[in-house]
Amino acid sequence: MIGWTIGFVDGEGCFSINFVKQPERKDKTRIRRGYKIGYQISHEFAVVQGAKSISTLNKLQKFFKVGGIYINRRYDNHKEHLYRYSVAKREDLINVIIPFFQKHKLQTSKKYDFSFFVKCMKLIEYGKHLTRSGAIEIALLCEKMNHKRSRTELIKILRNQTSDSARARRR
Amino acid sequence: MIGWTIGFVDGEGCFSINFVKQPERKDKTRIRRGYKIGYQISHEFAVVQGAKSISTLNKLQKFFKVGGIYINRRYDNHKEHLYRYSVAKREDLINVIIPFFQKHKLQTSKKYDFSFFVKCMKLIEYGKHLTRSGAIEIALLCEKMNHKRSRTELIKILRNQTSDSARARRR
Repeated sequence: MIGWTIGFVDGEGCFSINFVKQPERKDKTRIRRGYKIGYQISHEFAVVQGAKSISTLNKLQKFFKVGGIYINRRYDNHKEHLYRYSVAKREDLINVIIPFFQKHKLQTSKKYDFSFFVKCMKLIEYGKHLTRSGAIEIALLCEKMNHKRSRTELIKILRNQTSDSARARRR
Repeated sequence: MIGWTIGFVDGEGCFSINFVKQPERKDKTRIRRGYKIGYQISHEFAVVQGAKSISTLNKLQKFFKVGGIYINRRYDNHKEHLYRYSVAKREDLINVIIPFFQKHKLQTSKKYDFSFFVKCMKLIEYGKHLTRSGAIEIALLCEKMNHKRSRTELIKILRNQTSDSARARRR
């Protein structure tokens, strides 16, 4: 099962970090308890399959003993719904998923995504994601992951944030 | 390596059968030596990866000891070229690839594609693909494989073929 899991994740797995914008408050600042930077940072290890292969996701869940399986309904031209095996809980990622893939190395370029994911999770583990500089560091790491989506806009927002927050507080 | 290979092929592998139209002759029949049905049937086991993961394709080639690696150049918005590990030679598929995946079972729905692929290859091994009825049988199996692309038009052409060929011969 270990070899198959590595190979399958090499093909179909995804390690991702996302910035979720927090709703603005009435005073126009986005400062909420715990999310001083205005963004909540989410983290996920996921494997997506069509309905016909859901048994493989059950196998992964049984193997890792963490995470859940969620449906992503599709209509129109799609012949089947998609299912997503997802591990998003911080402690499950830190205690189960990361140690497994550190012990059993991925073979494709996904190993680089994984290494950036680990770096992000380390920063998050130490609470750095709650600070502006830590969030910027994570955003810069994210730019190197997966499809190398630019986070320039987000980084610009984070970099300009102190002055905004200060301005808001002055009001 | 066996477990990883199964998992990776479960994610990224593809077993496919294709009908390649043969050029028409001057007398408008498509009857060529060896391709009486007017179509050449090709068969392939392939795994495609971006340039960054080419080392995994080298591993597969080294492991199976058959097949080649080919580049599929991409420009425009694509960040890297694609590489394709491909086994297309009939004897390599029959003697190496098929026995391997019969011994070590795929876990996703790809196992169904594989089983239809094996049925097609059996028909091809016994020369059935050179006959109209055999080609129709293969086309019907192909309809159940991969993205379940309809082969209705092809099957219609094959079914109407005898009368066409007979007509051509009468001229």
